[in-house]
Amino acid sequence: MAARSAPMSRPLNFSPGPATLPLPVLEEVRDELVDYQGTGISMLEHSHRGKAYVEVHEEAIALLEELVGCKDTHEVLFLGSGATGQFAMVPMGLLQGGKADYVDTGAWSKKAFKAAAFYGEPRWAGSGKEGEAYVRAPMDLDLDGDAKYVHLTSNATISGVQYHDFPDVGGKPIVADMSSDMLHKPIDASKFGVIYAGAQKNLGPAGVCVAIVRNDVLEQMSEDVPDIYNYKAIAKKDSALNTPPTFPIYVMGKVLKWVKAQGGPKAMQEQNEKKGALLYGVVDEHADFFRCPVEKGSRSIMNAVFNLPTEELEKKFIADAAEAGMLNLKGHRSVGGIRVSMYNAMPVSGVEKLCAFMRDFQKANG
Amino acid sequence: MAARSAPMSRPLNFSPGPATLPLPVLEEVRDELVDYQGTGISMLEHSHRGKAYVEVHEEAIALLEELVGCKDTHEVLFLGSGATGQFAMVPMGLLQGGKADYVDTGAWSKKAFKAAAFYGEPRWAGSGKEGEAYVRAPMDLDLDGDAKYVHLTSNATISGVQYHDFPDVGGKPIVADMSSDMLHKPIDASKFGVIYAGAQKNLGPAGVCVAIVRNDVLEQMSEDVPDIYNYKAIAKKDSALNTPPTFPIYVMGKVLKWVKAQGGPKAMQEQNEKKGALLYGVVDEHADFFRCPVEKGSRSIMNAVFNLPTEELEKKFIADAAEAGMLNLKGHRSVGGIRVSMYNAMPVSGVEKLCAFMRDFQKANG
Repeated sequence: MAARSAPMSRPLNFSPGPATLPLPVLEEVRDELVDYQGTGISMLEHSHRGKAYVEVHEEAIALLEELVGCKDTHEVLFLGSGATGQFAMVPMGLLQGGKADYVDTGAWSKKAFKAAAFYGEPRWAGSGKEGEAYVRAPMDLDLDGDAKYVHLTSNATISGVQYHDFPDVGGKPIVADMSSDMLHKPIDASKFGVIYAGAQKNLGPAGVCVAIVRNDVLEQMSEDVPDIYNYKAIAKKDSALNTPPTFPIYVMGKVLKWVKAQGGPKAMQEQNEKKGALLYGVVDEHADFFRCPVEKGSRSIMNAVFNLPTEELEKKFIADAAEAGMLNLKGHRSVGGIRVSMYNAMPVSGVEKLCAFMRDFQKANG
Repeated sequence: MAARSAPMSRPLNFSPGPATLPLPVLEEVRDELVDYQGTGISMLEHSHRGKAYVEVHEEAIALLEELVGCKDTHEVLFLGSGATGQFAMVPMGLLQGGKADYVDTGAWSKKAFKAAAFYGEPRWAGSGKEGEAYVRAPMDLDLDGDAKYVHLTSNATISGVQYHDFPDVGGKPIVADMSSDMLHKPIDASKFGVIYAGAQKNLGPAGVCVAIVRNDVLEQMSEDVPDIYNYKAIAKKDSALNTPPTFPIYVMGKVLKWVKAQGGPKAMQEQNEKKGALLYGVVDEHADFFRCPVEKGSRSIMNAVFNLPTEELEKKFIADAAEAGMLNLKGHRSVGGIRVSMYNAMPVSGVEKLCAFMRDFQKANG
C-alpha cells in the first residue's frame, strides 16, 4: 500500500498519557486502517473470535511475556477500565477481608489504597512524603507479617518519584502499578505477584490495561466474584472471556514489536537513562531556577517534575515551549509546575531539544 | 488531506460484533490517523484532558443524548469492560442485597443474572425458552413487587430474539442490555432506568461501553463502592474520572455522526425493517430449508438465526457465502447454525445480495 508522507514537522509531545507513540507505528496503523492486511476488513471491525484478530491478540501476549521475561511464571492478561480498575480488582481477588501493606508515593497510591479498603484492611507501610511534597521512593518499609501483599507505584506520574530498585519485602508478593514505567528497563519479574499498567503511557493507546499475575498468586485469586473480576476465569479464556478492547490491543502489539526491534527493555533503559541524565543535568545546573523537590536517587526518568521561581514564569515556559513545538509540559493540576514526560517513544533528540530550550529560557528569565 | 481509494470490492461483513462499520467513517479515521486535524498528533496520542480529545468526548455524549432523546432525563456515561462489566456494576450500584426481576432470552440474560446474584437476589420473571430453543421475547412477566428493577436483553444476539415493544412493568425502571440493537430505531427512553451497550455492534469498535442512566436511578446508585464502579462519581467527572478509552470513543463519535447524517434512529428503523423483511422473506419462502426457531413477532432484525437441514449444508452455506464475499455467517458456537447480523452499518444492498445467494443456495441444495 502506498505510504503517505508524515507531517513535515511533528511536534514533540511530552504528555503524561495518553502519550506520544512511535511514528512508524502510527503510519502502519494508518496504512492498514481500512483494509487490514488484505482481509478487506478494518481491525476496528474484525471479530475477536476471528483468525486475523486472534493472531494479533496472541502475538501481543507472547511479546509481553518475552519483553517482561515472565513466560513460565506469570499469566499476561488484557483488561478494561485502566489501572483504576486494578486498584479494585486486585484486593477484590486477594484480600477477602485480610490485610495488605501499601506504600505512599502520591495520588495514585492513595487511590489504590482507597479502593482496597472496600475489600480488606490496607495499611500504610511507608511514605515518600516530606512536608507537602513527595521526595522519595521509600526503601525501608514497616511491614505487617499478616499482609497478603505489598502494593507500590513503581513510578508516580504526578509526583515524579520512581523506584529504581525495589525494597526487600521478605518474600511477600509485590503488587506494582507500573502504568508509567512498564518496559522502561529490564526487571526481575519473579518479585512481583501482580504487575499492572494502563497502556497509555509506555505501551500503547488508552483503552487496555495489562495485568501480569504470577502463577502462585493467580491460584490465590478468589473466584467468588462476577466473571468480569475473576482473574482465573479471564486467564482460562486467554483474556477473551468477553469482547476485549481489540483495537487498543492491536496498536499496543505494534508498540511492543517496535520496542523489541529497538533492542527491548535493555535498549530502552539506555535511552531512558540518557534522557534522564540530560534533563536533570539542566535542572541541576540551575537548581535555583528549575526546582525539583525529589531526592536524586528517586527522581523519575519517566516524568521529571519541577517548579520555576514563579507561577507566571511557569505559564511562560509552557507557552514558549508550545510555540517552539514542545507540547504538554504543564504539571498535573493537583500540584502545578512543570512536568516532562519522556516515555520509551520519546527520542533522545526530543529531550535534547527541550534541554536547549530550558537553558535558553533560564538565561533569558533567570 | 488527500483521500486514498477504498479497496475495489469490500466484502460484506455479517459478523455479530465487532461488526462492520460505515466505510466513510473508516476512511476519515485513516485520513487523520497520524495528524488529527492539523494538531500534529494522532488521536491515539492526544491527552484525555486536552482540548482536541475533550471536544470529541463531549460531542459523542451530546450526540448520544440527541439520538436517544434523553438529554434532560438521563446521564450518558462511557465505561470500560463492556456490557459484561455492566452485568456486575448495575446490581452493585442498585441492589444492596435487594431483589430484582430478570427476563431470560438466552445466554446474555443468564450471564447478567449470574453477576447480579453476587449483590442481591435476582429472580426470573419470565423466559422466552421453549424446549431447547429461545422462541420469543416474553411480554407477560411474573413481577415481584419488591424488585428494584426489571432487567431484559432488548436483542439477544445469540438466540436471535428481539423485543419490538417492551413489556408493561408497572412503572419499575427497566434495565436493558441494548448491546446489539442500540439506536436501531427510536425508543421512549423514559421507561428505562439504565440502558447499557457494548459499542462493538451498532455504535462503534470494541473497547467502550455506553451506560445511559435515568436521573432518579442515578440518585439511587450506591456510592459505597470503589470509584471505578461508582456511577455518580463517574457522572460528576463526565466519564473522565480516569483515562477513558479515548480512541474507541472517538471512532464511536464518528459513527454517531454518520447515524445522524443518515437521518437518525428513524431512518435506521426504515432500513433495518426493510433488511429484516427481505431476509425473513426468504426464510419464510423456504421454511423447511431455512429453519428459524423464533416466533414471528420476536424475530430479531439485528441477528437472524436459522438452521439448514443438515450441519453439512450449514458448513457449505458458510463456505460458499464467504467465497462470494459474504463473511462471518456462522452461528454462535453454543447454538450452531447460521446467524446473519445486519446492524445499522449493513446496507440494504448487502442483505439483498445475501438473499439472492440464499435463494440460489436453496435451489441448488434444497
